[in-house]
Amino acid sequence: MTGSDGSATPGAQQQAIAQASGHIAEVVAAGAQVVLTHGNGPQVGNLLVKNEMAADVVPPVPLDWNVAQTQATIAFTLADELDAALAALGLPQRTAGLVTRTLVDAHDPHFAEPSKPVGRFVAREEAERFMALGQIWEDRGERGWRRVVASPEPISVVDSPAIHALADAGFVVVCAGGGGIPVVDDGVDGTALRGVEAVIDKDLTAAILARDLDADTLVIATDVPNVMVDFGTPEQRPLGRVTAAELREHAAQGQFARGSMGPKVDAALRFADGGGRRAVITSLEHIADAVTGDEVGTVVTAAL
Amino acid sequence: MTGSDGSATPGAQQQAIAQASGHIAEVVAAGAQVVLTHGNGPQVGNLLVKNEMAADVVPPVPLDWNVAQTQATIAFTLADELDAALAALGLPQRTAGLVTRTLVDAHDPHFAEPSKPVGRFVAREEAERFMALGQIWEDRGERGWRRVVASPEPISVVDSPAIHALADAGFVVVCAGGGGIPVVDDGVDGTALRGVEAVIDKDLTAAILARDLDADTLVIATDVPNVMVDFGTPEQRPLGRVTAAELREHAAQGQFARGSMGPKVDAALRFADGGGRRAVITSLEHIADAVTGDEVGTVVTAAL
Repeated sequence: MTGSDGSATPGAQQQAIAQASGHIAEVVAAGAQVVLTHGNGPQVGNLLVKNEMAADVVPPVPLDWNVAQTQATIAFTLADELDAALAALGLPQRTAGLVTRTLVDAHDPHFAEPSKPVGRFVAREEAERFMALGQIWEDRGERGWRRVVASPEPISVVDSPAIHALADAGFVVVCAGGGGIPVVDDGVDGTALRGVEAVIDKDLTAAILARDLDADTLVIATDVPNVMVDFGTPEQRPLGRVTAAELREHAAQGQFARGSMGPKVDAALRFADGGGRRAVITSLEHIADAVTGDEVGTVVTAAL
Repeated sequence: MTGSDGSATPGAQQQAIAQASGHIAEVVAAGAQVVLTHGNGPQVGNLLVKNEMAADVVPPVPLDWNVAQTQATIAFTLADELDAALAALGLPQRTAGLVTRTLVDAHDPHFAEPSKPVGRFVAREEAERFMALGQIWEDRGERGWRRVVASPEPISVVDSPAIHALADAGFVVVCAGGGGIPVVDDGVDGTALRGVEAVIDKDLTAAILARDLDADTLVIATDVPNVMVDFGTPEQRPLGRVTAAELREHAAQGQFARGSMGPKVDAALRFADGGGRRAVITSLEHIADAVTGDEVGTVVTAAL
C-alpha cells in the first residue's frame, strides 16, 4: 500500500485503506494465507512536523517512535476496514495488527552517511535549530532544507515468530509497517535490543519477512500494472514473466528509478532468486489475480 | 504500569519501563502465562499537544489514533526491555505487542456527557479555537481550560482472539494499551468497526480481557502495596485478603477516589466476583509474589 499526499487527512487515508481492503479481501477469498506489510512515508512526515512544532512544549520523540506510531494507526484502520471487507465476502478470517521491530546493524554504513530524506522542507533558520539538536538537514535548493536520516539494510524481522504464530492461527496479519521499527542489538541473539533513529526500506523488509515465513509468493502492490523498461522512449514496454537473471540485468542497466521502482525490483529479486518462489509487482486492483496466476503484473522467478 | 509526568522525556519513559520489565520477568519466571496491559495518560497528553500546535500545518488526527500511537511506542520499548529481562533470567519466552481495539457502545451515555479530562491546560482563547473544531473544553478555574472527552464502558476486546493465539504460542503479550483503541460497530458482530474519539478506562478493559482469556489472576499494579480504607484518618488500615462483598461495601461507602483507586477496585470486583478467580491490587515490586501467593497486596476473591 502506498501513501500519497504528505498532508493527507485521516479521512482521506481511511478512504484509501477502505479501497485497498476490498482487493486484499479478494486475495484471502482466493484461498491465500495473507501477511500484509505497508509503507508510512506521508504519515511519518506528518509526525515529524508535529514533533518539531511542539518541541518547546513537549519533548520530541525519536524517529523509531514515529515509525511505531504509524504502524498502529495504519494497522487498526486497516483492520477495521479489512474485517468489514472479509465479513462482506462471508469469510471467517479476521485481522491482527502486530507492532514489529526490524533488526539493523549498528555499524551499517548508512548510519555514517544518512541520505534518506524525510518530512517537510523548511527555511534554513529552522533547519539550523534542529541541526543544533543533532539532526542532519540538507540544503535542497529552492524548496528549502530537508532532514536526512539513515536507511540501513534490514537484517531480520525480530517479531517474525509472533507473525508466524498469528498467521498459523488463521489471522490476516498486518505487520512490519514502514519496514519495521529499526532496532540494533547491543547483546547477542536479540538480548539487548534498542530502537535507533532510522527508516528501513519497506520493500526490502517485506522480502526478508516473506522468505522467513516461507511464503511462496511476494506481491508488491504499486501504482502501475507492470514494471516498465526503456520507460519514456519509443522502445518502452511492460515486463511480464521474467527470470531473476533478466530482471537483474535490466536493473544493472539503470532501468529503475532509485527510491521508486528500484527498491521494489531489488526486493523482488532478493525474494525470488534461487528457489521455487515467485515475486509479482503489479497494481493494487490486480493483486488477487497475481496470487492465483501468472497472467498479470511483472512476475519474477528464478527460472521460467 | 502507570505513567508519571505529562512531559516525561522518551528517555525517562524508557527507564521506567526497564524497571517494570525486571518485575514482569519475575512473574514469567514464576511460571505464569502473562498478558500485559498498560495506561497511556501522559503519552496521549503529549500527542494532543502536538496535534494542537501543528494543526495549521498538518491535519490533526482523532483521539483514537492517538491511543493507537501510544500502544505502539509503549509496546515496542516494553518489548525491547522485557525481552532483555527474560533473556537475563534464561527464559525462552519473548514479547509480542498487539495493536488492540476495544468495542464500546455508540449510544453509551458518556458520549452525550464527556467528562474525562485529557491533555494540558490552555488559555481560554486557545480552547475556543479547538471548540470551534467541535471539541469540548471546560473552564477549570485558575489552571485554565482543559479538554474533556467521553470515557465509555468497554464492552469487549475486539482483538482478544489474537491475544489468545499469541499467549497460546508462548508469547508474553503486550496489548489493550490505554484501555484499547475505542471502536463502535455500525454493523453486527464486528462487521463494521470504526474508531471513535474517546478514552477507555484501562483497568476496566483489563478486567474484561482477563475474564475473556479465562485468566485465574488479575494483577493491578499501582504505586502502593495495598488498597487503604479510612485513608487519612486514625483508623487508616491496609486491606489484605477481602471478599468481593466486603470490598464492594467499602466502595459503596465512598472509600476509594474516583479516577484513582476507584477504577482499580471496580476492575478487581468485576473480575473476581462470582467465580474461582482472584484479583490482586499491589505495587510493581510485589507482582511476582502476588501471582504465586496470597501474602502481598489486596487480594480479592468471591469467598475467603
